[in-house]
Amino acid sequence: MQVSEMGEFGLIDRLAEMVAASSDEKLATWRQLVIGIGDDTAVWQGDTSLQLLTTDTLTQDVNFTLDMTTWWELGWKALAVNLSDIAAMGGIPRYALVSLSLPGDTEADDVTALYEGMIEIARKFGVAIVGGNVSRAPMVSITVTVHGIAGRNMLTRSKARTGDKVAVTGNPGTAAAGLKMLIERLNFNTDTAELLRNTFLKPLPRVAEGQMLVERGVAAAIDISDGLVADLSHVCKASRVGARVEIDRLPIHPAVRDNFGDSAAGLALSGGEDYELLFTAQEEIVTGIIKAASCPVTVIGEIMAEKPGEVTLIDITGKQLDLLRAGWDHFTVK
Amino acid sequence: MQVSEMGEFGLIDRLAEMVAASSDEKLATWRQLVIGIGDDTAVWQGDTSLQLLTTDTLTQDVNFTLDMTTWWELGWKALAVNLSDIAAMGGIPRYALVSLSLPGDTEADDVTALYEGMIEIARKFGVAIVGGNVSRAPMVSITVTVHGIAGRNMLTRSKARTGDKVAVTGNPGTAAAGLKMLIERLNFNTDTAELLRNTFLKPLPRVAEGQMLVERGVAAAIDISDGLVADLSHVCKASRVGARVEIDRLPIHPAVRDNFGDSAAGLALSGGEDYELLFTAQEEIVTGIIKAASCPVTVIGEIMAEKPGEVTLIDITGKQLDLLRAGWDHFTVK
Repeated sequence: MQVSEMGEFGLIDRLAEMVAASSDEKLATWRQLVIGIGDDTAVWQGDTSLQLLTTDTLTQDVNFTLDMTTWWELGWKALAVNLSDIAAMGGIPRYALVSLSLPGDTEADDVTALYEGMIEIARKFGVAIVGGNVSRAPMVSITVTVHGIAGRNMLTRSKARTGDKVAVTGNPGTAAAGLKMLIERLNFNTDTAELLRNTFLKPLPRVAEGQMLVERGVAAAIDISDGLVADLSHVCKASRVGARVEIDRLPIHPAVRDNFGDSAAGLALSGGEDYELLFTAQEEIVTGIIKAASCPVTVIGEIMAEKPGEVTLIDITGKQLDLLRAGWDHFTVK
Repeated sequence: MQVSEMGEFGLIDRLAEMVAASSDEKLATWRQLVIGIGDDTAVWQGDTSLQLLTTDTLTQDVNFTLDMTTWWELGWKALAVNLSDIAAMGGIPRYALVSLSLPGDTEADDVTALYEGMIEIARKFGVAIVGGNVSRAPMVSITVTVHGIAGRNMLTRSKARTGDKVAVTGNPGTAAAGLKMLIERLNFNTDTAELLRNTFLKPLPRVAEGQMLVERGVAAAIDISDGLVADLSHVCKASRVGARVEIDRLPIHPAVRDNFGDSAAGLALSGGEDYELLFTAQEEIVTGIIKAASCPVTVIGEIMAEKPGEVTLIDITGKQLDLLRAGWDHFTVK
């Protein structure tokens, strides 16, 4: 079987099983491992705090193209997507390593611009770039690894409980609308074009928001980079619960709703590339967060005992809708 | 200017300067950073131990080809090269993340074999594989990140002192001989062929040896994956000293000396891919290590005040030789 037939998540499940089957229990205990493969970051218990580690790769012509993305934006985004994983655990990012693969004819000034973008977001989030490596490759590829810490508590995919409200930060679908705008060369007014481009190429990971969620007692969260439905279904599988999402409650940005019409909901549900947080918690906790947060936080549904592992979409009348598509998968055809 | 004109190390120097120039001193202090860009790993001070982090990428048709390397060997080596960086700091490796980029038509069984190789070396060195990601790409690329710890002391590139002896573990040049055998389809007897292939494709990082060096008071070391001369010159630059290497003392393996004749010394000096440790220390320390080590340890030269940053090669008569070539550089043509 080819990996495109298994899909990204099928392959990850198989590899995670192999690693689990080979694991010496003594080793895991000795290593004080708290969370291994299968969450936004790995977690182990340090001497005084939880230690987080995450990595992600952006590959040319798969995750970005150089005609749509500037080198500066590429540097920003390569670090941003990893900070988002730390945010999804409620952690504080601290150190970054950069593994950069480049064709030999890459202009040194382009690499400088890439580092300028990376340095800018690193400074913004108090992250120190501490090492990495550069090597030759037929195309550009950037793997960033971020190390962070968390206090006594953190956010995981496995803590959603029946009766929890499902909430999301920001306006899912805006990033996918930005990608669509760039691919289809759509023309919008300057404000809209800038909003869409920046949301897709210069995302602001919800690091402060993740920490606030932990402080206010939230236990279950994920970032929705794979698409809202796909990532919520990861939470459902890990927590062995189901979820219902009311699509009329999706906080679609007016610029997306106005310009993308019928496809706006699809972008929000499965467009991917949103570096927003989805979390679940009891209603009073969510209400407090909505009041305190400096970004939009919207309840879009709830966790239920039925249909564990599944996400059900309903409209305003309560009628069930088909899942349009399950979200971004790196191997299977969409 | 293109990166191929700057070379790998010129590019790294430029990026390191950018990061240093942008660094907020308060941030570095707050982060308790001990070593940033420019050594085998990044190092920061944890609550009770030094924390190490390193990453390295293997790219298809640049660092390996699938007709010469099995998937199992690829998995082994992708982790081994990172363990070697931890070894070069005298550290203990603990956790690994794997970022795997694959064409969609990759056979799932090949990925399984890759993980089997990686799991085998992980178990051997007590490392837990704790996460990562998989994504689509036009060719295979593996970036592994390893986190480790060190006690109060560690090995760095910057601690070589005038009068130190320069010593090396193992038999440099054997890995490059293995690569040459595979590329040129050379035929040797089974023992030789197996030795050369395994040294190149299934290297054993000197993790225990690195820890022993620290315990015995060594302060300066590097792994010689870029080639003995290139890596010794990294030590010389970081320590602001010169070094003299007596090429007749190079511990070339008999199988390499017998089969590669005049090119054996070149393989040892600049072939690269040797995951051996080069270290410098006062003579009595080195003598103790030679007696205690379970692998070959050989004095090949000494550190001197003259010609800081440079490596001088001399023959048995004391005559200076030309540097054949400076070692492996990922961008410049050799």
